[in-house]
This record gives sequence, structure tokens and C-alpha cells, in this order.
Amino acid sequence: MSADRTKISWNGWGWAAHKDEVAGDEAAWAWLANEVGMPSLLATPARPLDDTALAPSRLNTSERNQFTRVLGEDRVRDDRFERAFHARGRSYHDLLHLRIGDLTTAPDAVLYPRGTEEVLSVLSFASDNNIAVIPYGGGTSVVGSVTADASGFKAAISLDMSGMDRLIGVDPVSRTAAAEAGIYGPALDKALRAQNVVLGHYPQSFEFSTLGGWIAHRGAGQQSGRYGRANDWLVAAKLATPRGLLTTEDFPGSSAGPRVTDLVLGSEGTFGVVTEARFHIRAAPAESLYTGFLFHDFASGAAAIRQAVQEELPVAMLRLSDAEETRFYRSYGAVGKRRGISGRIADAYLKYRKFGETTAAMVAGFEGDKATVEHAHRRFGEIAKHLGAIAAGKSMGARWYQGRFHGPYLREPMMDRGLGVDTLETATSWSKIDALYAAVKKALEDTIQQTAPRPGARGIVACHISHSYPDGASLYFTYIFPRALDNDVAQWLAIKRAATDAIVAHGGTISHHHGVGEDHLPWMKQEKGDLGVDVLRAIKATLDPKGILNPGKLIPN
Amino acid sequence: MSADRTKISWNGWGWAAHKDEVAGDEAAWAWLANEVGMPSLLATPARPLDDTALAPSRLNTSERNQFTRVLGEDRVRDDRFERAFHARGRSYHDLLHLRIGDLTTAPDAVLYPRGTEEVLSVLSFASDNNIAVIPYGGGTSVVGSVTADASGFKAAISLDMSGMDRLIGVDPVSRTAAAEAGIYGPALDKALRAQNVVLGHYPQSFEFSTLGGWIAHRGAGQQSGRYGRANDWLVAAKLATPRGLLTTEDFPGSSAGPRVTDLVLGSEGTFGVVTEARFHIRAAPAESLYTGFLFHDFASGAAAIRQAVQEELPVAMLRLSDAEETRFYRSYGAVGKRRGISGRIADAYLKYRKFGETTAAMVAGFEGDKATVEHAHRRFGEIAKHLGAIAAGKSMGARWYQGRFHGPYLREPMMDRGLGVDTLETATSWSKIDALYAAVKKALEDTIQQTAPRPGARGIVACHISHSYPDGASLYFTYIFPRALDNDVAQWLAIKRAATDAIVAHGGTISHHHGVGEDHLPWMKQEKGDLGVDVLRAIKATLDPKGILNPGKLIPN
Repeated sequence: MSADRTKISWNGWGWAAHKDEVAGDEAAWAWLANEVGMPSLLATPARPLDDTALAPSRLNTSERNQFTRVLGEDRVRDDRFERAFHARGRSYHDLLHLRIGDLTTAPDAVLYPRGTEEVLSVLSFASDNNIAVIPYGGGTSVVGSVTADASGFKAAISLDMSGMDRLIGVDPVSRTAAAEAGIYGPALDKALRAQNVVLGHYPQSFEFSTLGGWIAHRGAGQQSGRYGRANDWLVAAKLATPRGLLTTEDFPGSSAGPRVTDLVLGSEGTFGVVTEARFHIRAAPAESLYTGFLFHDFASGAAAIRQAVQEELPVAMLRLSDAEETRFYRSYGAVGKRRGISGRIADAYLKYRKFGETTAAMVAGFEGDKATVEHAHRRFGEIAKHLGAIAAGKSMGARWYQGRFHGPYLREPMMDRGLGVDTLETATSWSKIDALYAAVKKALEDTIQQTAPRPGARGIVACHISHSYPDGASLYFTYIFPRALDNDVAQWLAIKRAATDAIVAHGGTISHHHGVGEDHLPWMKQEKGDLGVDVLRAIKATLDPKGILNPGKLIPN
Repeated sequence: MSADRTKISWNGWGWAAHKDEVAGDEAAWAWLANEVGMPSLLATPARPLDDTALAPSRLNTSERNQFTRVLGEDRVRDDRFERAFHARGRSYHDLLHLRIGDLTTAPDAVLYPRGTEEVLSVLSFASDNNIAVIPYGGGTSVVGSVTADASGFKAAISLDMSGMDRLIGVDPVSRTAAAEAGIYGPALDKALRAQNVVLGHYPQSFEFSTLGGWIAHRGAGQQSGRYGRANDWLVAAKLATPRGLLTTEDFPGSSAGPRVTDLVLGSEGTFGVVTEARFHIRAAPAESLYTGFLFHDFASGAAAIRQAVQEELPVAMLRLSDAEETRFYRSYGAVGKRRGISGRIADAYLKYRKFGETTAAMVAGFEGDKATVEHAHRRFGEIAKHLGAIAAGKSMGARWYQGRFHGPYLREPMMDRGLGVDTLETATSWSKIDALYAAVKKALEDTIQQTAPRPGARGIVACHISHSYPDGASLYFTYIFPRALDNDVAQWLAIKRAATDAIVAHGGTISHHHGVGEDHLPWMKQEKGDLGVDVLRAIKATLDPKGILNPGKLIPN
């Protein structure tokens, strides 16, 4: 296993030892309390693992023995840590449950297969014995994709793929590579870079997520502008199902019927378990340049992105914060710090250039060979300038780059202080994006106020565009709010519902890169149509006739 | 209807009035006879339509009345021309049947709907009454995708979509457009260019094929390097099914489960009828440059293509003929013509530069804004030169461009003279392409000899790469052979079988852009795997429970 699981938090994000510097910064907390309209923030610590209740495993001896016969004793785990670790993903909603020690969704055992044949054997036995199987990559889902709910089954096992972590091979001629699906982001990246190539898929969860997870939830890395989404880089996959192995087409271009590989993308462990994958690789980029721009407002920044992508400019990433997100990061980072002379000169300059409260900050990233990076940077600078933006320098880019995987760590110190923080994301066409943005922002702000623990309390609702396409872009919302401590889950659900209803009403997808899981299930019929859902259900019934694979996810009843 | 069907050949390719200049060129025929090892060529004319037997329509009055109620009397046709026109596609195999007047697969009526509701109404009635429905775009299939076989059904109707030919609208902000699926290539191109945009999908069948057909068979236009395959440009579709309308997702990027739009691509009318589609558009290219190169051999030309696509050079098309194709077109075009001084100087120069029998000709196409075209042309020239090629000039590019849709017209004069000519195509990864090329070429040559009408007769087997990707490329074979006139169909089938077996054995797809239809059906299980085929079957059963849609195509029993 490529990551030492005992060093990863079972009820929060990432490394258990990580301490966020903001945790003890009382000035920042006081500022934040004021921002959300609360007189003070409460201490709301998480319950330690030893202090949780855990039901005995529902697997009987003969079932457990079957698994140990297939996998070996050390690959079948049912200790408290393993079961708790695999009980849920790592969404705000998951953390609400885990932090109070609710382990009702803990799997009865965690299995670590070492190869496709072992996975097939486990699935066959589980299918014959009414045991639910929850395929598990890095477990970083933020939409309830790995909740190990055994409802309707005799037991539930988590099938942890992290033991299948080999780079199978690189084909330098065809610029593809193949790997086992359980390999973690950093291990895959390291193995590929040793051959001077990259996949280039760096989602925020990169350090704690796996190749198989990226495919199964059809996601996008931060530099999707250059490296594409999982849809773009996946060439072929092996999908282990209760009915046997499905090996998908491995051709550069084909018109031989619908592409079965496309059905693996986004299947979220409900059709089968991705055990191996072949994917496109590129030469490791010779140059990498991240830099900042300030736009007068979100609209002009969005216009710059649209122009760049429609010109097919080879940008790796254009990440544009709206005014609230720009303000929040500037203020939050500056609390308690005296701004030096250079900072004050910068402030004065911005004021002189009429960059006011609507200012929208952008981090632009360029990767590739030297000529491409230089060309794309120069041309994007022209586009931005023409739209009234000013260059804000590489230090802004470097700051973003350094912290690009750290965002999720902010949740726990906030949850320790009676604050909630969640994110949601969508995407739509350029012609609908303004209306969608306004509607979701309003839905979030209104529902946070309505569900706040006291009158006058309010949320911070920030948004950025992080992924863009010729025909549209994603919107990623982050919202911080005072928790209704007596009714946390209902509050979360009310906010989620209002926002997602607004998304659907305004032509946005229910998820741009997080997936469906349990959380977006109620909107799947609106997303896919009744017949579209029927099709997904028929595919599942074909590959998983007993419905043991990741029940309760992706496909509504 | 955007094309006057009566002007299109019912038993051959394209405009009925087209006369190929080669038809009366006896010198060319004598040369060709010699090439294929025949002492002379026989006259084998096609039977005229009036001289064919046609069974009465199997629709009873009440059924016919139902259709005329929905569509109007003039949109339900059952005259001889309409039924013959819609009996089959336009493959060599189809032409073997049509030219002898075999109309056993003629539909019992041809219906011309004007809107999605009418299509739904027809499908619902047909499903309830055991009537097979063959969705029909331009009918240019070369793999048996529109054969109107009624086996197992009470009757068969052809659902001709050419009455649904409106451009619905252009969204200039999102750079997408929507159109009804029955619109022909030229009409769509004209309507888009009136707004200074293009889709850029120009298959060889462009003049006679439709938007819906391009989607349903998941094809690629000649300039797919710039404009992408149908997979790349399709945004969303409406699919009319016997169970109602499936409207697929319309988002620029989404992770909300598997993409249902992807299932429409390649469905070949077996899941439903594409009635409308939204697709990406681009600014009409300011510049267009087509030029020629000569490589010392196929391998060095292929290496140049691979380098260009892996560098992500913005080329529109790189079309490389192998030595046999290069030789054939040079010789065939030159028969009976005296080469002038400039031609002889060119020949001498090539000889001096050691361009011998292995010479491989390439046409390279560049489209887009001026800077992009200039950059790509210059850079590709460097790559080619480095690999030993010489520039052969724009006249070679212009010649190809002018005749780019005319290839299929060559079939009929050949078939009139006892010659067969067919094409097949595949694609594989760069690391497998040499072995695949050799194996298919050998299979074709050997089988043509084995099935030839006399000892010593042989085929001309030519090949080109026309579509390329970072991970691989297509191979397109054209083969001319003396027909076994007493057993034409068996001869065709033997050749097809040998070639496709070789394709499958060497890691090629059974079709790069022609589709599956009836002709590739026997290899679908090898292409998709048993489970993959089960999945396609389950999708069909969901959307078309009675199995009335295009029976006998795409999905093996």
C-alpha cells in the first residue's frame, strides 16, 4: 500500500499530523465571527476514535474465512481504525457524522486485494452471499460516494484498492501508460516522472486520491486546460464486475458502436471496480509558469477566460475568484498582520487604478515547452490587459501553487469553532453562466441566513471559475456559515437542496468534478432524464445483477 | 427536403448524372486489366430500375392510414424509386445486390417526418404493431447500416430524416449551434457559414450524408485533426425512442455519472432516432492551405505524422499514401498522357534524390487563422525535411482537395467492367501500426488471389493513413480486384473476413469511421467483449423493448 493509512485522518482531511496555522490565531477567529454575524465562536471538538461506539462485524466466520483464503489474513482487516477510516468519505456532511463518532456506516471488514483476479473472486462471492461491496480508492469523496451503508444486505465490505498500486508500463511510442487503479497520485506521478512523462491530473485531492477514483468519478485536475479531464485522458480500463471482467476498447479512434470505456467514466463503483487503466501521457513540462492578474470585476475576468479558450490558447489553468472570494482571501490572510510599505503602495496603486470592491483575482497557469508557455503567457496578458486587468505578479501564482492542495484542511479548525464550511460546484455554457452564478449565490446566502442559529447571522459565499471550455465553464462555490449545532445535518441539507435546485433550474450540471454519490442522487433524474436513468439502471443490472456494488449511490431507485 | 432525391443514384454513389471521365478511357482500362492480371475486362452493366422485381408493400391499409394521419399523405411514399432508393446503403456489397436488381430488402414504405413529435408517434405505433423502423439519414453507409430487412417483423419502414433539416440556432457566446438531424452536409455548412462559423465535419460522404448520420455512426471528417470526431464536437442530442424522448446532458463539463450523450454516438439507429443535436462550432477558417510532401517510404511519413500530433501541432489533416497507393495514383492518372518537360524534370529529380518504388506521398492540410496556419505549415515542413521528405507543392494539395469527395464515384465504372473495388479501415496505437498494416495488406492480397476468377489474377491493395491521434492512427485500405462474377458476394465476404480477422488479431478496431452495421457484426464480441455486448444489448432493450429499431445491426444476437 503506497500510503501509510495510519498517518491519514479517519475523521478529517489528509495527514493526521497536519496543524493549520490558523487554528490558534484568535484574531482571525474574532474577525471571522464578526464576518458571519456571530458574537463569538464556540468550541466544538471532534470525538476521539477510542470514544466511539462500533457494532460488531456482521460477517460470520465462514464468510471471513472465504475472504482470508482469497486475500491472505493480513489483507482482511476489521479493527476499529480500519472500519472507522472506511465508514465514509470526507465531505462536510461526512465529517458531521464522523466527528460525533457516528460509525453506523462502518464496513464490516476492509479488504485489500492485490490483483484483478482477487477482485473478481471477492465480487463473485459477495454477489452470491448478499454482501454489499464498496469500492474504495483514496476515500476523498465529498459527495457521499463511499458511505459503507449495508441497508438491505447481510453485511458491507470496503474493497480498498490501495494494494494495487503498480505502474504496469509506459508505451513511449504511443504516449500511453498503464497502471493498477489503486495507485495514489504522488506515487503515480513519481513513477511517470522517472521516465520524464506525466499524466498531469492534479485534483485538489491529489495527495490522497487514486487513479481508479479519478476515473470512477470522471473528474478534472486543476490543470485540465492542458491535460484534460478523465474523459480526455482515459484510453481503456479493466472493470471487474460480479459477472466477470469487462476489458474496454483500446483504440485511438473507433466508430465501432458506442464506446464502452465511456461508461466506466463516472460509474462510481456501481457498475464494477476499475482495476487497471491505460491513459495518455505527455512529456513532463519543461516550463511551468503561474502568475496573477487583477480584473475590475468577475465579468471581465470571465470574458478573458472565454476569449482565451475560444482562441484555443494553450493555457493549463485560469482560476478566477469572484469579488467575495478575492476580498475574503485578502482580508483573512491579512488579519493581525501590519501591511508593510510595499503593501500599502500596492493598495494605493489599486485604488488609483479604480480597483475597488468588485476586484476579481485570477491565477493563470501555463505549462509545456518554453515556446508554448511564453506564447500563451504573452497572449493571455494581451487579452487580460485589453479587458482592463493588470498583472499582479508571479508571487501570487507561487502562493496559490504552494497551497493548491491545502484548501480542505481549513474545514476542521472551522468545524472546531462552531463554523461550517462546504463547497459545491457546477458548470454551464457561457451564455447561461451569469444567471446561474447569481441564482446559486442567492440561494446559498438566503438559505444560510434562514438556517442560521441566530438572527443577523450570515454566511460568506465565495465563488471561482476553475475549469473552462470553449462552450462554458465551471463555478466552484465555497461557503462558510455559523453552524446550527442542534441540527447540523438538516442545516447542511437545506443549504445543499436550495443551491442544487437553483443549479438545475438555471441549466447547470449537478456536479462538474465531484460526482454524484449519495448527495446528488435526488437530482439525477433531472440531470439525465427518466430514460437516461433507466439506461444507467439497465447497465448496472447487466454487470451487477444482485446490486451489491456501492448501493445507494449514483442511480436513484 | 434539402436534396432532390430523384437526382441521386438509387444503385450507386452520388449524383445520378455524374459521369466519371475514366469510364470511356480504354487505355486506362487496358492498363488496369494488366495490373490485376486479367487478359481483358468484361462488360457487367447494372440492371435498370424498371427491370427489377419488387414485392408489394406489406403494410395494410389501416397501418398506412395511421402513418398518413401522422405525417400527411405526401410524406408517406411507397413508389418503386423510393422503396429501391432506401433498400440498402451504398457499400460495394450493397451495390452487388442493387446492380442485379435485388430489392428483397426494400422497405414497405418510406416516411418523411417533419419533427420530433412525429418521429415519436411513428416509433410508438411501429413498436405496438411489430413494424421494423430503419432510421435513414443520407443512406451512404458502407457497412450495411440501413439495410431495410424486415425478417421477423410484419413489415419494415424507412424513416427518412431529410425532411428535418433546419438550423435551429447559433449560440455565438458559447460557440455552439443546434440543428435538426436530417440536414445534409452542404446545407448545414452553408447555413453556418452565413454566420461565419463552421462545424468542420467533412467526411468523404459530405455531400450526401446528414448531421444525424455523422452522430449515429460516430465518424470523423477529413479534417478531424482540427475539428475533431463526432465524439469531440457533439454537445447534446435528442434521441426519439419507442419509449419516448431521451434528451441528453447539455453541459460543457460534468462528473454526474456516465455521459448519456456518449451512448448516442455510434448507436446506429438501434437505440433511437437522433432528431436534433447541439454541437461545437468554430470561426470559419481565415486561411486554408493544402500541400504535398514526398517521403522515401511509408514508415518515415508515419513517423512525421506521429511527431506532429504528439507535439500537438495544429494540423487539420495529414494524409499519407503507402507506396502502392502512391504508385497507383501516379500511374493511373498518367496512363495515355504524355508527360511534359516539367514532369520529366520532376521525375529525374526524384530519381536523383533516390525516391524510388517505396515513395509515399502525403497531402498535408492546415486551417485556421493566418498565424496558426503559417506556424503549423512551417513546423511540419521542418519535421518532414528532417525525416528526409521533400515538399511536393500546393498543386498536389489542390488536386487532392478538389477531388476529396469523388473517390466513391470510381466504383461504378469499375463494377461495369468486371472489377470489384472496396475499402475498409481500422485504427490502432502507434506501437502496433506496422504489424497491423503488414497483416491486413497480406490478408487482402492473399484472399484476393485465392478468390480470383483465374490463376495469375491479383489485386491492387493500397493504403493510407488519414486520421491521427497522439496514441495512434487510422489505416484506410482500398483494394481493386477482378470479380468472381458467378460468386461476387461470397468473394467479397471471404476478403472482408480475412482482413477483419487480421485486424482483430493485431489490435486494430473493426472500424475507425465507417461503423458496424451488418458487415462488422460478426466481430463485435471480439471488439467489445461479451460483457460489453451485453451492456449494449441492455441499453437497447431499455429504449427499444420490442427491438423494432434497425434490427440486425450493431448488436449481435
